[in-house]
Amino acid sequence: MIVVMKTDATAEQIDHVVAHIRELGMTPQVITGKFQTVVAALGQERVGLVELLEPAPGVEKVLPIMAPYKRASSELKGDRTVVRARDLEVGGLRIGMIAGPCSVEGEDQIVELARTLKQLGATGLRGGAFKPRTSPYSFQGHKEEGLKMLAAARAETGLAIVTEVMAPEHVAMVAEYADVLQVGARNMQNYNLLQAVGDAGKPVLLKRGMSATMDEFLLAAEYILDRNNPHVMLCERGIRTFEDHTRFTLPLASVPYLHEKSHLPVVVDPSHGTGKARLVPPMCAAAIACGADGLIVEVHTDPEHAMSDGAQTITPSVFSEMMAHCRRVAEAVGRTL
Amino acid sequence: MIVVMKTDATAEQIDHVVAHIRELGMTPQVITGKFQTVVAALGQERVGLVELLEPAPGVEKVLPIMAPYKRASSELKGDRTVVRARDLEVGGLRIGMIAGPCSVEGEDQIVELARTLKQLGATGLRGGAFKPRTSPYSFQGHKEEGLKMLAAARAETGLAIVTEVMAPEHVAMVAEYADVLQVGARNMQNYNLLQAVGDAGKPVLLKRGMSATMDEFLLAAEYILDRNNPHVMLCERGIRTFEDHTRFTLPLASVPYLHEKSHLPVVVDPSHGTGKARLVPPMCAAAIACGADGLIVEVHTDPEHAMSDGAQTITPSVFSEMMAHCRRVAEAVGRTL
Amino acid sequence: MIVVMKTDATAEQIDHVVAHIRELGMTPQVITGKFQTVVAALGQERVGLVELLEPAPGVEKVLPIMAPYKRASSELKGDRTVVRARDLEVGGLRIGMIAGPCSVEGEDQIVELARTLKQLGATGLRGGAFKPRTSPYSFQGHKEEGLKMLAAARAETGLAIVTEVMAPEHVAMVAEYADVLQVGARNMQNYNLLQAVGDAGKPVLLKRGMSATMDEFLLAAEYILDRNNPHVMLCERGIRTFEDHTRFTLPLASVPYLHEKSHLPVVVDPSHGTGKARLVPPMCAAAIACGADGLIVEVHTDPEHAMSDGAQTITPSVFSEMMAHCRRVAEAVGRTL
Amino acid sequence: MIVVMKTDATAEQIDHVVAHIRELGMTPQVITGKFQTVVAALGQERVGLVELLEPAPGVEKVLPIMAPYKRASSELKGDRTVVRARDLEVGGLRIGMIAGPCSVEGEDQIVELARTLKQLGATGLRGGAFKPRTSPYSFQGHKEEGLKMLAAARAETGLAIVTEVMAPEHVAMVAEYADVLQVGARNMQNYNLLQAVGDAGKPVLLKRGMSATMDEFLLAAEYILDRNNPHVMLCERGIRTFEDHTRFTLPLASVPYLHEKSHLPVVVDPSHGTGKARLVPPMCAAAIACGADGLIVEVHTDPEHAMSDGAQTITPSVFSEMMAHCRRVAEAVGRTL
Repeated sequence: MIVVMKTDATAEQIDHVVAHIRELGMTPQVITGKFQTVVAALGQERVGLVELLEPAPGVEKVLPIMAPYKRASSELKGDRTVVRARDLEVGGLRIGMIAGPCSVEGEDQIVELARTLKQLGATGLRGGAFKPRTSPYSFQGHKEEGLKMLAAARAETGLAIVTEVMAPEHVAMVAEYADVLQVGARNMQNYNLLQAVGDAGKPVLLKRGMSATMDEFLLAAEYILDRNNPHVMLCERGIRTFEDHTRFTLPLASVPYLHEKSHLPVVVDPSHGTGKARLVPPMCAAAIACGADGLIVEVHTDPEHAMSDGAQTITPSVFSEMMAHCRRVAEAVGRTL
Repeated sequence: MIVVMKTDATAEQIDHVVAHIRELGMTPQVITGKFQTVVAALGQERVGLVELLEPAPGVEKVLPIMAPYKRASSELKGDRTVVRARDLEVGGLRIGMIAGPCSVEGEDQIVELARTLKQLGATGLRGGAFKPRTSPYSFQGHKEEGLKMLAAARAETGLAIVTEVMAPEHVAMVAEYADVLQVGARNMQNYNLLQAVGDAGKPVLLKRGMSATMDEFLLAAEYILDRNNPHVMLCERGIRTFEDHTRFTLPLASVPYLHEKSHLPVVVDPSHGTGKARLVPPMCAAAIACGADGLIVEVHTDPEHAMSDGAQTITPSVFSEMMAHCRRVAEAVGRTL
Repeated sequence: MIVVMKTDATAEQIDHVVAHIRELGMTPQVITGKFQTVVAALGQERVGLVELLEPAPGVEKVLPIMAPYKRASSELKGDRTVVRARDLEVGGLRIGMIAGPCSVEGEDQIVELARTLKQLGATGLRGGAFKPRTSPYSFQGHKEEGLKMLAAARAETGLAIVTEVMAPEHVAMVAEYADVLQVGARNMQNYNLLQAVGDAGKPVLLKRGMSATMDEFLLAAEYILDRNNPHVMLCERGIRTFEDHTRFTLPLASVPYLHEKSHLPVVVDPSHGTGKARLVPPMCAAAIACGADGLIVEVHTDPEHAMSDGAQTITPSVFSEMMAHCRRVAEAVGRTL
Repeated sequence: MIVVMKTDATAEQIDHVVAHIRELGMTPQVITGKFQTVVAALGQERVGLVELLEPAPGVEKVLPIMAPYKRASSELKGDRTVVRARDLEVGGLRIGMIAGPCSVEGEDQIVELARTLKQLGATGLRGGAFKPRTSPYSFQGHKEEGLKMLAAARAETGLAIVTEVMAPEHVAMVAEYADVLQVGARNMQNYNLLQAVGDAGKPVLLKRGMSATMDEFLLAAEYILDRNNPHVMLCERGIRTFEDHTRFTLPLASVPYLHEKSHLPVVVDPSHGTGKARLVPPMCAAAIACGADGLIVEVHTDPEHAMSDGAQTITPSVFSEMMAHCRRVAEAVGRTL
C-alpha cells in the first residue's frame, strides 16, 4: 500500500502514519520526494486497510498495490480451471453452449426445446424455475415444479441443467435437480448465498453484477472458492451505463482481462448483455473471437408468448444459423463448438 | 403502451400487433401518421408486456406509459407517509438524524457513542451487526452479539436502533432487537429478503442499489408495501458512475423527484454517497436544503481504528458542528432537526 | 410524438396540449385510456418539440417516435455506403485496416513504420499531427510539419493518410495533406468543425464521443452529411463508464446496431477502446466477428518511447501476428482483410 | 509516480524500469516488499509519463501521485479567486445569480426579461446567441444580432452578460459584447477554444464536460489559466450516467471537492443538471447549502414557446419564489444572495 501525504504534511503527521502502519502489522518505508512524501506499507495488504489509513491528518490518498483476491488469481494457480458438468465443458478447447428459455414454462415445452437444442449443438440447458423479477406483480417462476421439468428434459437429452438459485434456503433443493447453480447478477454480492453455493460443492455460474468492478466480481468468486468449491465460471452479462439503445452495455474486453487475471473460465451472456434478439448472434460471434469459454443464450420457440424476456430471445431457427456461424469463428480462433 | 411500427411495416404486421394486444387483454387503437403507424394498447399495463410485443415483425420499439409501481405511487395515496420508531420520525416536519458507527465493535463503544449522539440531537442509532463485505477476508460483524450491544445502547438512550439484515433467515432475529430493519444497497433486489422484511411489519430503511433506476427503486419498495408493511423509508446512498474522486456519486435530485412520484419519505446517506469524511457535512446540508426527511451518517470516536469505513466516518466533534450548521439550514427551509 | 398526460389531467389541460400541437404544425389525436389520456402528435417530428410540449400543465412526459436523423438513416438510403480513399476501403467486403503511431514523431519514423505496416496488410496510415491533449503541458503535435511527414510516408507506400483535424481553421491545411479527416471523440459535438469537414468534401472518420448516445452520434454524422459530404465513417472508440480496469469500455454491440440503423460503415478503435496493448488483438478479432468494416490501431516500434499513448500501443511484431489471426476470423465471417 | 511490478517480475525487468525512470529525468527508488516490488519515481511528474512506463515488461500498473494541474490547484495559490464582472461577483460572500433564457429570441424579450430578473436579484444575464445544437435541423441562435440584443439588455439593466462562444474565430466578436465568455460542456476539451478564451483575458465560465473527471475539468481550466487569464469560474452542470429520470445527474459533491482542490470559484447549473423545471428550485437551494459561489438558471416568460430547453426552464414567478427561498438558505450558511 502506498500512503500519499499532502504536499504540506508535517513531520509529525508522517510519523503518525508510520506508527499506524506498524500497528497494522506492516512495515513502513518513507520515500521523500521533492514535492511530496509517500509512505510505502510493506507486507500482506488486507481489504479495509485503505479505509483505516485515509482518515489520518496529512494524508492525501491511499493506493492499494496488491490484488484483493487470492484464490481466483492466476498468480496463485498457474493452470486454467476447466468446469465440467455432464457434456458441458467450460474452460477447455471446446466452447460450452448453454441455451434455453428465460423461464421454464411447462414440461412439454422444455423437453421439446431441449431436444432441439441438443440436436443443434447445445451442451447445457438454461431455464429459470426461481425468477428474480423487478416487479412483485410479474411471474416469479414455477419453483420446484420447474426444477422437475428441467430434470425431465435432462433425462431425455443428457444436457447439463443450469438454473438460478436466489436464496440460501433454496440451495439444497436446487442442487438436487441442477447440474450448475447460477447466481444472478442482482445477487452477485449476496454473500450468504455465495457461501451457500460454495458449500454445495456443485459447479457455479456466477454472473457479474450490473455495476460490479472486476475486483468486486473476482472477490465474489473468492467467496465461493473460499468454501473449497473450485468449480466456478465467471459470466459477463453486461453492465449498466448511459447507453439506452441496448438494455445493458456488453463490455467484451472483460473476457481477455479476466483470462489474464484469473484462472477461472469466462462465459458471456449476449441475451441480457444486449436485450435485443437481433444483436445476440453477432455478439456471440464476437465473444468467441475474443476468447469466451462459454455462451449462455435465451432461446424460445415463440418469443412473443414467452413468460419473460421475449425481446432478447431468439428462436431455434435463428439459433441454428447462429451455431453454424459461430462454429466457423470458433475454428478460426482454434476452438470447437 | 405505445407500439411504434417500423416505417416499412406491412398491413399484415400491424394486424398481427393489433391481435396480439387483444390477446393480452388490452384494447388496441391504431394511429396512422404520415411517416409511421403506432398502435396504442389501452388498459392495465403490466410489467413484462413490453417484452412480449417487441419481438413481433415490423415492430420498431414499445414505449410503456404507466408507472410500473402502484402502492409506492403518490397517485394512489395522496397524503405523505411518516415513519416513526421511538423518537425517530421521518417524513414529518422534524428531520430524522440517524448516526453511529459503520460496525458495532463493542458494548462500551456503542453505549458511550450513543450517549454522545443522543445529546447532540440524533434520534436514531445506526450500527452494523451483520456486515456485507466485498471480501470474504474482511470483518463480517459481531452478529447476534452486536444486536445485543445495540439493544443495550437503546436501553441507555432511547435512540431507535437502525441495523442491516442481510438474509431472510435472519429477519426474525434482527427484528427482535432492532427498531428499523435496514436493507442494504447490494440487497435492494434480493426479493426474498424484501418479502421477509415486509412480513416482519417493522419500519424498513430501503437503500437504493448502486445502479438502480428510480422505477426499480420504487418497485423494490413495492415488494415490501405489497406485504402490507407501509413503514418504508427510501434511502439515497449514491450511485456508481465514472466519477472517481468520490466513492460514489450522490445524486440529490432524487430527493425532490421521489417526493413527486411517491408518498414515501426520503433519507440521504452522505457517508456512503461520497466516501470522504470531509464531504459529509456539506452534503448533509445540501440534502436538507432540497427536502430530505432524514439523514444517516457514520460517526466514530476514532475513525483510524474503526473496523470498517474509516475514510467516510466523521468524529463526534465534527458531528456536533455539523448539527449546528444543519439546524440553521433546516430552519431556513421550514423544518426542524 | 406521444404526449402522456398525468392521471389527474383536466379536460382543459388536454385541450391546451391539443391546441399547442396544432400550433406546432402537427395533427393531434387524443387517445383516452381507462387510467390515462395520451395525445399523439402526427406529422414531421422535429428535434426540440419535446421540450416545448413538456412544460405544459398536466403533462407527465413526452415520448418521441421518429429517429431524429434522416440522411444517416438506413430508412432513407437502402444501399450501404462504402468509403474509399486510395487502397483503403471501408464498408465493402474487404475490411479496412488503419494502423500507425498515436503521434507522428519524425519523418524517418513514420516512413519506415508505414513501409512495415503496408507490407503486413494495412491500407491506411494513422498518425497525429495535431494532438488534442488533456493537459496543456503535454506534447501537442508537430502540426504542419507532421502533415508533411505523413505525406512523405504516403508517397513511399501509397497508404491512405488518416489524421485528426481539431479546429475549423485548420481544415483546409489538413485536407491538403490527408486522405481522411479524423474528427476526434472530444470534438464529436464541435458543430463548427463538423460543418467545416463536411464542406471539405473529403472522407471523414467521425469518432464517437465518450458519452454520446447512438442518436447523438448519428446526428453528428448528420451535420457532415447535411453539407453534402456522403463519405462518412462512424468510429466506435469506447465510452466512459464506471469500469476502471480498462481506459474506456468498448461496447461492440454498437457495430450491429449502427449497421441496422444507418447505411454508414463502422470502424472500431480497440486501442483507445481498451487503453491496454494486451487487449487490442482480441478486441480486433471480436470487432471483425460482429461485423466491423474497419479497424484503427495504434502501432509503434518502441511504445516505451512513444510521444503519446504508449500503454495502448502494440509493436509491429504483435501487429503482424494479429493480422494473421484477424484474417482467419474475417474469412470465417465472409470478409477479407 | 509508483511503478508496481508484477509478482513474478524479474530482476532484469526491475532494472529496466529503473533505467527508464532515470532516462525520463526522475529519480528511481526501489521498494522490495514480501510479495511484490514497487519502484517509486521521484521528481516532477508529467502527464503522459504513466503511458511510457506501463508498456515495459514486468510492469503491473503505474500509479500517478501528484495532481496533474498546477495553476488551478489550491496548493499553489492559497487565497481563493473571486471573479467579478459588473455587479456579478462569484467567489466572495455574495453568491452570483446568473439567469435568463436558453436562447436570445428578440430584443424586446431579452430586455424585458432582464429588467424583471434584475429586480428579483439576478446579477448576471445568460442568453445564447451561438447555440450548440445536437441536430443540424435545430435553431442555431441569432449570432451577432443576438449579441447586440444582449448588449441592449445590459445597457438597460447593468446586468453582466454571460454568453457562450463556440469557436476560436468567434472569440473576438463575442468578447466585444459579453462580460463573461461561456465555454459549453461539449467544448470543455476543445483546446483551441480554451486557449482563445484564455488569450481574450475576459472572465470565463467553464462548464464541466458531461463525462469529464475532476482532473480533466481542472486541466481544462489550466489551459485558460496557462494563457495568463486568472478569471475562471468552474461550472458543474451535471454528468451523464445511467439515470434516466433526469436529463443528467447533478453531482453536488463536486462543489466542496473543487473548493478543496482548487482556488477557483464554483457555479452550479441546475437547469441542465436536472433537465426538469420542477427540480430546479430545490437543487438551487442544495447547491447553495453545500457552498456554491454562483448559480446559472434558465428563465423564460413562456417556456412552452421558448426556442430551446423549455422543459428545464422556470418562469419569472417561480424564479421570484425561488430567490426568496434561496436567500434564507444562503443566510443560514453565512452568505448573501
